[in-house]
Amino acid sequence: MSKKETPEFIRVPLAAMESQFHHILMQHGFADGKAKICAGIFTSNSVDGVYTHGVNRFPRFIKYVQDGHINPANQAICSSRVGCIEQWDGQIGPGPLNALQCTDRAMEIATIHGMGCVALANTNHWMRGGTYGWRAAHKGFVFIGWTNTTANMPTWGAVSSKLGNNPLVIAVPFQQEAIVLDMAMSQFSYGALEFYEMKNQQLPVPGGFSTDGILTTDPGEISKSQRILPTGYWKGAGLSLLLDILATILSGGLSVEGISQQKAECNVSQVFIAINISKLANYRTIASAIQGIIDDYHQSVPDKSAKVVYPGEKVLDLRAENTTKGIPVMKAVWDEIQAL
Amino acid sequence: MSKKETPEFIRVPLAAMESQFHHILMQHGFADGKAKICAGIFTSNSVDGVYTHGVNRFPRFIKYVQDGHINPANQAICSSRVGCIEQWDGQIGPGPLNALQCTDRAMEIATIHGMGCVALANTNHWMRGGTYGWRAAHKGFVFIGWTNTTANMPTWGAVSSKLGNNPLVIAVPFQQEAIVLDMAMSQFSYGALEFYEMKNQQLPVPGGFSTDGILTTDPGEISKSQRILPTGYWKGAGLSLLLDILATILSGGLSVEGISQQKAECNVSQVFIAINISKLANYRTIASAIQGIIDDYHQSVPDKSAKVVYPGEKVLDLRAENTTKGIPVMKAVWDEIQAL
Repeated sequence: MSKKETPEFIRVPLAAMESQFHHILMQHGFADGKAKICAGIFTSNSVDGVYTHGVNRFPRFIKYVQDGHINPANQAICSSRVGCIEQWDGQIGPGPLNALQCTDRAMEIATIHGMGCVALANTNHWMRGGTYGWRAAHKGFVFIGWTNTTANMPTWGAVSSKLGNNPLVIAVPFQQEAIVLDMAMSQFSYGALEFYEMKNQQLPVPGGFSTDGILTTDPGEISKSQRILPTGYWKGAGLSLLLDILATILSGGLSVEGISQQKAECNVSQVFIAINISKLANYRTIASAIQGIIDDYHQSVPDKSAKVVYPGEKVLDLRAENTTKGIPVMKAVWDEIQAL
Repeated sequence: MSKKETPEFIRVPLAAMESQFHHILMQHGFADGKAKICAGIFTSNSVDGVYTHGVNRFPRFIKYVQDGHINPANQAICSSRVGCIEQWDGQIGPGPLNALQCTDRAMEIATIHGMGCVALANTNHWMRGGTYGWRAAHKGFVFIGWTNTTANMPTWGAVSSKLGNNPLVIAVPFQQEAIVLDMAMSQFSYGALEFYEMKNQQLPVPGGFSTDGILTTDPGEISKSQRILPTGYWKGAGLSLLLDILATILSGGLSVEGISQQKAECNVSQVFIAINISKLANYRTIASAIQGIIDDYHQSVPDKSAKVVYPGEKVLDLRAENTTKGIPVMKAVWDEIQAL
């Protein structure tokens, strides 16, 4: 597909997408139950509009299975425990399944100890980090989690990539849904850059440097230079470094540097922290406290006409729309998936 | 002092500064032991170059004591426990003392449970958040902590301030020292803006909007508009919101909105999480894992001649220099302190 063509989109019904993913995963060595869960995650990521870590990413996920980077027969196992902290070994099983398992385990620990931390080594890309935040928040828990990645971002003041964009997720229950912050440490994820590039759009704010070292909004220029911008310059760079250090030492797994020495982005390290708020002395007032904060936030005076929204708020409308109308998918991507 | 004048600086020896603070605090109702610890914190913040939350802030701290916002006779007390989570009431005691106490308590809990969380309501400004990160990391713990503040930052896309700049601190032990990230959710703290303004300098990157809604590097323009920029635009805004929600619901204390309804910035809510890494199965390899990450980080190719540094690295040289030569203080500020 040439960069200047506008891609053709089709709408794929949710059930059809999930069934297609399920079928393909089973053809690639996933047991029925695991294929169903994994297909569900890729589909719900797409329903929620995170196409870059849903339908658009599915072919690459299958390629990783074919290349042996992801072993569909393996799953995470607990390797050690210290109080409310557990270390798990992902055994290069499918990233979304390992992450879901560790999220659920963190909630189990939190149910006993108030807070639970599962640090996971040797896992694979969890796709959309928000998946695990929504999961935990829907069950009434506070969630804090992050992953490291391959080196894909220079620190502030550098031209060579030594940092990962290490997405961080923080989620809290809200009404029947959740407030979910899901932020990579780059101003834009590479997935987002790809999306803007495919749609032939400029970024709304500078997202990196051109090969000449000039800040630019052109996603193609940034792809060329590989000098993506840390969010908030030195701040996102610093946070990325600390998240990598924590994921590495808590899990005993690979750091960004170690991941980057491999042929592909695998054996990543992740942290899943759940907090059980239901036993707190102030539990009965928590929902109204969050409501009060959001009500006040919504009273922000916008600088343009657009309404100010909280992290995860826009997802709700899009989820409803995509569930009703079908998920918008580039025809070229869907054709590629049909052929897997 | 007119904006265009270059302020005159003097060097105050560390011991002289600490003794002066100690003396003044005792004159304002602090018991000897508490005055000593509090003076030590203000002095060490200054030694480490965080003048905005050290010597420059001391007069305002005393004013808060005089006005009754800070009660020097009070200290934080534990109000409830659930597993490894404790809720404490700061009783509007001195913020740095409450924060130190809760940091130490989080480490005690972590020693038993692997991880400890103390959520503190009704406290006061902790001054430099990094203080508590250095404290915990020097004792071998991982530290994650944050505070909410009065509303001082518009969310992305808004002109009215509904968010706090809610500083976040993450620290890990490193060599005999620590790696300490201490970041406010605004691109620049108001303290930093004041510092640039006093030195008549422009910010290195845009830090907010002018009254005309244009992104600007002029700290005075931003002070006028009160439209400080969230770090990473919508990302820092989102993180700020989530940190406020967590601090509020975990502590049962006031949110940014609640704090903002008071006459002064007091009764803030804070979270202190310590992780005891010394019992982890991989403990013996943790120091070398961090060293490996930092060695690799230091091999970043800089875009200019400056060396790439990790968060907290520059502090070490400055700490040594200020300890030897004395702490640089604006003469006007020191005169004001002498007169307290």
